[in-house]
Amino acid sequence: MTTADALSRLDTPALILDEARMLRNVARLRAHLDRLGVTLRPHLKTVKSVDAARRILKDGTGPATVSTLREAEVFAEAGVRDITYAVGIAPAKLDRVLAIRATGCDLAVVLDNADQARAVAEASRRSGDRIPAYIEIDSDGHRSGLAPADADLAPIGRLLVEGGAELRGVLTHAGESYGAVGAEALAAFAELERQGVVTAAETLRAAGLPCPVVSVGSTPTAHFARDLTGVTEVRAGVFTLFDLVMAGIGVCTTDDIALSVLTTVIGHQRERGWIITDAGWMAMSRDRGTANQAVDQGYGVVCDVDGRVMEDLIVRGANQEHGIIAVRAGSGATLPDLPVGTLLRILPHHACATAAQFPGYEVIPADGGPLAHWPRFGGW
Amino acid sequence: MTTADALSRLDTPALILDEARMLRNVARLRAHLDRLGVTLRPHLKTVKSVDAARRILKDGTGPATVSTLREAEVFAEAGVRDITYAVGIAPAKLDRVLAIRATGCDLAVVLDNADQARAVAEASRRSGDRIPAYIEIDSDGHRSGLAPADADLAPIGRLLVEGGAELRGVLTHAGESYGAVGAEALAAFAELERQGVVTAAETLRAAGLPCPVVSVGSTPTAHFARDLTGVTEVRAGVFTLFDLVMAGIGVCTTDDIALSVLTTVIGHQRERGWIITDAGWMAMSRDRGTANQAVDQGYGVVCDVDGRVMEDLIVRGANQEHGIIAVRAGSGATLPDLPVGTLLRILPHHACATAAQFPGYEVIPADGGPLAHWPRFGGW
Repeated sequence: MTTADALSRLDTPALILDEARMLRNVARLRAHLDRLGVTLRPHLKTVKSVDAARRILKDGTGPATVSTLREAEVFAEAGVRDITYAVGIAPAKLDRVLAIRATGCDLAVVLDNADQARAVAEASRRSGDRIPAYIEIDSDGHRSGLAPADADLAPIGRLLVEGGAELRGVLTHAGESYGAVGAEALAAFAELERQGVVTAAETLRAAGLPCPVVSVGSTPTAHFARDLTGVTEVRAGVFTLFDLVMAGIGVCTTDDIALSVLTTVIGHQRERGWIITDAGWMAMSRDRGTANQAVDQGYGVVCDVDGRVMEDLIVRGANQEHGIIAVRAGSGATLPDLPVGTLLRILPHHACATAAQFPGYEVIPADGGPLAHWPRFGGW
Repeated sequence: MTTADALSRLDTPALILDEARMLRNVARLRAHLDRLGVTLRPHLKTVKSVDAARRILKDGTGPATVSTLREAEVFAEAGVRDITYAVGIAPAKLDRVLAIRATGCDLAVVLDNADQARAVAEASRRSGDRIPAYIEIDSDGHRSGLAPADADLAPIGRLLVEGGAELRGVLTHAGESYGAVGAEALAAFAELERQGVVTAAETLRAAGLPCPVVSVGSTPTAHFARDLTGVTEVRAGVFTLFDLVMAGIGVCTTDDIALSVLTTVIGHQRERGWIITDAGWMAMSRDRGTANQAVDQGYGVVCDVDGRVMEDLIVRGANQEHGIIAVRAGSGATLPDLPVGTLLRILPHHACATAAQFPGYEVIPADGGPLAHWPRFGGW
């Protein structure tokens, strides 16, 4: 049975994962980081699937990054033993952290202020379990974290160490790199990220504090870093599946995008040049990450059922369960004749957001076998 | 225990539903439509919860509207016997439609072209079950449907009737009304919607075809319709919970919004005037429905834990699991002191989109009892 035949038996919309592309994407980044001499700590927030994680992690035990404690719980249960929960810890969540750690998983937390450090230290003393914590560094002004030479850095480190917790290191995420385009700009962002976190590590060490791990990470900077001296590990997540935002800034091509949404044509508005499908924003997500890029891809790029991009055909609009496909404005391309019942595949803007709309992946296996189903989970 | 105390025991982010507000919203629209002499057929795509549906439907058996066959299956299983699946039917889905109908649920489909009509007729003949179908009418140019006096209307009706299916009526959704503001503009939209679908019904009847049901629906037009002569039923969904988009066009106030996301303050960037929380776009959704309204509410309006709106405080940005709260640009309001650990509640842009990010509702019951949990479902 061909892949198209196999896909034609699925209910639509469905979330399609091309395993061969995913494995290729992972191998590409791993080879790059091996050359740079740093560890890859994949961020599993993109896939949220035990089956996918087993293929992405170096072995089944980690290292891994997560964005929710629910992810930590599921992956720890599946045997991952080394996890960084990379969102600033809320003090009320420390009991869950301790419970996960009690199962034998080395779960580390992240923080950037004294209130959190005191809470982590207190929970460590109370439990007799020295919770490992990273201090988050703000390398590009986009979100959380202390400045690389912030005067609070060493005092927070001391609150942890002297309070009974473990200061494992410093961690940053150059989220603004998503707005940079091309190899030179992205390499510059990677260097900015490296400098920020290495400066912070030196600040801690100069104060007599330990800083064994120096962690950076974002998919764009991970791929374009040229030198990671002083860095010990790289976190990245969306690189596993890639998406149109990453293609738009030059980190990948559309041929690397491992995720697509299978949809069925359900009608037409011929005088308007529209093809109506059953994949609206509930399937694609409301993410419009290319809206501010050089090429706005609407709600996604349209491919045929075999995954070949159709010239200048995009999802121009979306209601909850309706997609509206049209030729890109300004294009000379002709609207193809796609009768009711035609299957199409839509490349998403943002793999994390689109995948989260579905309960699981329908997987085109790398070995050419029949479609597989990999469940996903959500929640917190 | 106070509501705030009860909420403080939840893990964040959590989806909070104020049952009293939901019941008040439902009673308000039901009373309005009773005065206009039409039936309310609530759209359950917003709540996707059996517990919520039991409180929204007139009785447990319907009538109801859904946007996916998964919704139809779950609600039919829960005893709803009268359901309209209001997204154009894909021929490959007709076996699932027949299976649901075989359980005793009167599930109707929607279509707007001859290919669909032939498929519905063929499935009816094959199964011996006359599938009821609505012809979708395009009353405002926003999506699917035939024009109200389209020459294809009667031929498609005949394909159904002569082919062995049931022509149940005509159906429209004035989705463009979401862009209108204020009572006059919304009343005009409601009249446009009414005229479109009544014209279509008359076109069918003039051709000797039946058209027992004349169905309109959108939350804005449902509330502002002044006369629904010729219409038999109204569909609406978001009215049950309401949201900032509906408040922005004057259909409700923020005091009517029954849905909020409970979140915890996890940090600050004081020199930037930012408060960082654990409710990012994975919790709020990527919906930015107020972006083009007179007042852009960012990723949501901030309330204290008791649900009181905090002056000019909005979620100005969101990463996957981080929300960034700040005072609205141009406001003279002072950023309140909200220490790490503070609980807040965020009003969403779009109830359908935000609710879909969560596996269930934490319900503040109308009777003042302890919090309840109502599971939600997703998928197709």
